[in-house]
Amino acid sequence: MAASAPSSSAAEPEPNSAYLRPPTSAYDSWCGVAHGCTRKLGMKICGFLQKNNSLDEKSRIGGSFKERQSSKNVLSCENRDPRFGHTETDFSNLFARDLLPAKNGEEPTMQFLLEVVDILTNYIRKTFDRSTKVLDFHHPHQLLEGIEGFNLELSDQPESLEQILVDCRDTLKYGVRTGHPRFFNQLSSGLDIIGLAGEWLTSTANTNMFTYEIAPVFVLMEQLTLKKMREIVGWPGGEGDGIFSPGGAISNMYSVMVARYKYYPEVKTKGMSAAPRLILFTSEHSHYSIKKAGAALGFGVENVILLKCDERGRVIPADLEAKIIDAKQKGYVPLFVNATAGSTVYGAFDPINEIADLCEKYNMWLHVDGAWGGGLLMSRKHRHKLSGIERANSVTWNPHKMMGVPLQCSAILVREKGLLQGCNQMCAGYLFQPDKQYDVTYDTGDKAIQCGRHVDIFKFWLMWKAKGTSGFEQHINKCLELSEYLYTKIKNREGYEMVFQGEPQHTNVCFWYLPPSLRGMPDCPERRERLHKVAPKIKAMMMESGTTMVGYQPQGDKVNFFRMVVSNPAATKSDIDFLIEEIERLGQDL
Amino acid sequence: MAASAPSSSAAEPEPNSAYLRPPTSAYDSWCGVAHGCTRKLGMKICGFLQKNNSLDEKSRIGGSFKERQSSKNVLSCENRDPRFGHTETDFSNLFARDLLPAKNGEEPTMQFLLEVVDILTNYIRKTFDRSTKVLDFHHPHQLLEGIEGFNLELSDQPESLEQILVDCRDTLKYGVRTGHPRFFNQLSSGLDIIGLAGEWLTSTANTNMFTYEIAPVFVLMEQLTLKKMREIVGWPGGEGDGIFSPGGAISNMYSVMVARYKYYPEVKTKGMSAAPRLILFTSEHSHYSIKKAGAALGFGVENVILLKCDERGRVIPADLEAKIIDAKQKGYVPLFVNATAGSTVYGAFDPINEIADLCEKYNMWLHVDGAWGGGLLMSRKHRHKLSGIERANSVTWNPHKMMGVPLQCSAILVREKGLLQGCNQMCAGYLFQPDKQYDVTYDTGDKAIQCGRHVDIFKFWLMWKAKGTSGFEQHINKCLELSEYLYTKIKNREGYEMVFQGEPQHTNVCFWYLPPSLRGMPDCPERRERLHKVAPKIKAMMMESGTTMVGYQPQGDKVNFFRMVVSNPAATKSDIDFLIEEIERLGQDL
Repeated sequence: MAASAPSSSAAEPEPNSAYLRPPTSAYDSWCGVAHGCTRKLGMKICGFLQKNNSLDEKSRIGGSFKERQSSKNVLSCENRDPRFGHTETDFSNLFARDLLPAKNGEEPTMQFLLEVVDILTNYIRKTFDRSTKVLDFHHPHQLLEGIEGFNLELSDQPESLEQILVDCRDTLKYGVRTGHPRFFNQLSSGLDIIGLAGEWLTSTANTNMFTYEIAPVFVLMEQLTLKKMREIVGWPGGEGDGIFSPGGAISNMYSVMVARYKYYPEVKTKGMSAAPRLILFTSEHSHYSIKKAGAALGFGVENVILLKCDERGRVIPADLEAKIIDAKQKGYVPLFVNATAGSTVYGAFDPINEIADLCEKYNMWLHVDGAWGGGLLMSRKHRHKLSGIERANSVTWNPHKMMGVPLQCSAILVREKGLLQGCNQMCAGYLFQPDKQYDVTYDTGDKAIQCGRHVDIFKFWLMWKAKGTSGFEQHINKCLELSEYLYTKIKNREGYEMVFQGEPQHTNVCFWYLPPSLRGMPDCPERRERLHKVAPKIKAMMMESGTTMVGYQPQGDKVNFFRMVVSNPAATKSDIDFLIEEIERLGQDL
Repeated sequence: MAASAPSSSAAEPEPNSAYLRPPTSAYDSWCGVAHGCTRKLGMKICGFLQKNNSLDEKSRIGGSFKERQSSKNVLSCENRDPRFGHTETDFSNLFARDLLPAKNGEEPTMQFLLEVVDILTNYIRKTFDRSTKVLDFHHPHQLLEGIEGFNLELSDQPESLEQILVDCRDTLKYGVRTGHPRFFNQLSSGLDIIGLAGEWLTSTANTNMFTYEIAPVFVLMEQLTLKKMREIVGWPGGEGDGIFSPGGAISNMYSVMVARYKYYPEVKTKGMSAAPRLILFTSEHSHYSIKKAGAALGFGVENVILLKCDERGRVIPADLEAKIIDAKQKGYVPLFVNATAGSTVYGAFDPINEIADLCEKYNMWLHVDGAWGGGLLMSRKHRHKLSGIERANSVTWNPHKMMGVPLQCSAILVREKGLLQGCNQMCAGYLFQPDKQYDVTYDTGDKAIQCGRHVDIFKFWLMWKAKGTSGFEQHINKCLELSEYLYTKIKNREGYEMVFQGEPQHTNVCFWYLPPSLRGMPDCPERRERLHKVAPKIKAMMMESGTTMVGYQPQGDKVNFFRMVVSNPAATKSDIDFLIEEIERLGQDL
């Protein structure tokens, strides 16, 4: 919606309506055909398709809500033949109370939903169009003040469906197109159409994962998909357990809970005072959720020991062993090691086998946080980077990251059956009645720390059906190739410095861009201070211009650098080239 | 999809196509019009609408995938005029890889999404049609074996989009219609059209709540909505803090975490060993998530003390005080009291003011679990039941329950600012850079125990816009009236016994149905044993026949009883009547 440039696929303009933009798709063309041969038929559907394109156009060129409303009057598509009795729906006189389950609510409901779908499909089309901006940035105070009549405040009285549709358009207009081919800002990016369809269906089904009773199909899909994931991890026969959770941080939290339950089941009843001082280990490059779990679950952050990494961000096993010994000497009990498979910033893979050896030696739980890197298991070419994962006691794997599944979709896999249930069950009688007519082992709710649980499985299952394992493999390989392309392009390019040497293990490419003014300056506090400001400045300008988005951060003693990641299936080499050009364009005078 | 009876709103059948069901909506009628006057136009859209109705029809009357495929050949809508070049899309030769971002992927993408929407809108229409079954029950092994070709297994190779569409239909067919007017099985029921539209938009935007950077509009909507909720709770000026979490159990977990952080902030760093033995209090009727939180966070379940309730399920304050004193005498530290506003089974409201007095007296954190009852705050008539909630330190309130918002939508509200952030923040440099160009206090991620966080706010915000506060109030009042109707209907009816006396506080109506064979039998072990089996048997028959769904459970020493709840806006008195008739029909010979 935020595009300032015209659509890249423009065809012949529709002659009768000055306010219509040139048709950009088959749908617009059909409407053109409709006008060309008769006005008696298909007007309804044609009308809603055209009207929204036009409204959207008005919205893009500005104009208040009132102006946008009045723009409807000039739409040629609204000249209807009254004989058919299906005049343009006037949403300004319809309200939520007129929709289903209201009496006679079926037609307005269908009308309204189709209008919404039209808004969404237009958004989708433009998201994949590189001439559309990634975002139309505004500061919080600007949005709070209400831009062009977009009023975020809630009121006592209902608004018309017309206004609701405008609100939907505005919400998308001022948002960020995370599916845009040039959105590289997070580990989760892209907009998978099958996944999206799956999510639309999920919301329509609007049910809850806690019992087979009300989610029979989804519960079975979850069970089969988790088994498949465990097979891919390499556990014999795909045996074990698991559950989808609301994100990698919660999945990691599960791993710590289950480890504690395995070694000190009495903590469930008696609390942490029943156990000795327990120590969790994770690398200094690992995700902060291990520390969050340590804090939340009552271990305390100072009992989450950070391990040193090599220059590539991979944990140094010798440091782990030294710290295990140190902890034991202090009388503490080393409980748990998190090995990261694909660190957030460097994309590093910890050496799982060496860590597994230490876990066996010292009788500790091995968790692999593959939230980001787990997807590489789908690629025969890249899965060796997770070698040893089959020795893990638990694995976090977020299909919503590298596999392109819409948010949220994260799995915690546990090798030993029964632990999740044992750890979390409270046997709520109102949900988990033992005297149901079906096999109640299919009720999953007592494995979870949640009660109600959103259906996160369907979109993923549907994508797997639609792509096959081979489709995921191709996607993973392509993303890795693109990051290799970026790495090769900039590693010796003037004005670039790599944050770590050698080809990245994942799609993370970490680099500094040095504006001409900093090139050749020797390393000194002033250079570091100035370089630290470069990435934030370029990022701010990127966001203001809306052309692309990429993340940056400091790490340890390293000043702010860009972290490029590729997980978006829409990205191509041309988008990588664009990013580099854009960084240079925005950064040249800094 | 599982309906065996014809649609209740049938009109004139479409004469040309033997396989088409009678039109049930304006869309079918337009297609009829299309056939009546010209076959040249609107065929595309008409075609997809009709085809799916027909497929759906075939699916309802059985038939394999192949049969369903071949049924397409008889559709009159497919006789297209080749001049328009828009032949029926053959999805059997299209795959996920042909959709966007594929080159020329736009048209198949739009086609595919419209097909999906057609499946969903058909589902929605039927869900509100009382002649449709609530569910088409099958046992796990039946679904796993693959009914009528519905194969849940994942494979290496991709399936065609045709098969994906069939999978979508089958998924809905074998699911449970939680929006059906006769679905009373859970606290969350109904299918709000505005909320649904909001969720479709949310999935299309596919972003993450952790930073303003990538969710500017949603972050502000969350902020404004939480403020509004705090105002309604009664905290001066709506001040305070809060966050949407993945459900009431997690919201309750937050309350315990924040309470601990307020009184013993050193636990974050040093773990539970830094604190004395801390005690949490909650009623024996409260939700099991307080115990889950106690177990997970390291308190231990035996430090979650259950409080006695009166015969209506409301906590007895004197029991709380006695147990506080007892804990203190043992040298433990009473930390936290959970007062339930709307218990899961009885719908009971604990006396918040009396509990608040004790919390003040003993310097304890007061949490109100209004996951289920919080919605009553929207009703001037019923909000007195939560009197005293403004004295709480934290409140759980699930709009996805009584307010009819689609799953998941749960808020944890905290009266004191800064605690959520202090409790959970880990300052991840890669997300929460302090040197961004905007006011980074709008980045919410460090308040959460999650990292990525699903956008749960938009559907709720949009519903609030569309209904207004007044619309929620009307919905709440109507649900309470319906449950009053049920209560009045059965309290003196032959064959019914109320589980507790007096009018329910919430919509929960708890009752035993006594089959004629048990009536008049004196209370004895045999009667109890037989009565215990009645509700499960009736429930199983209900599910087999698919006509309605209602929950049952035992509670304390009470044998299985039905718990009826009303939160579904589609329910009417006739549905209440139906439920009673159905229980009597199914149960008369037990």
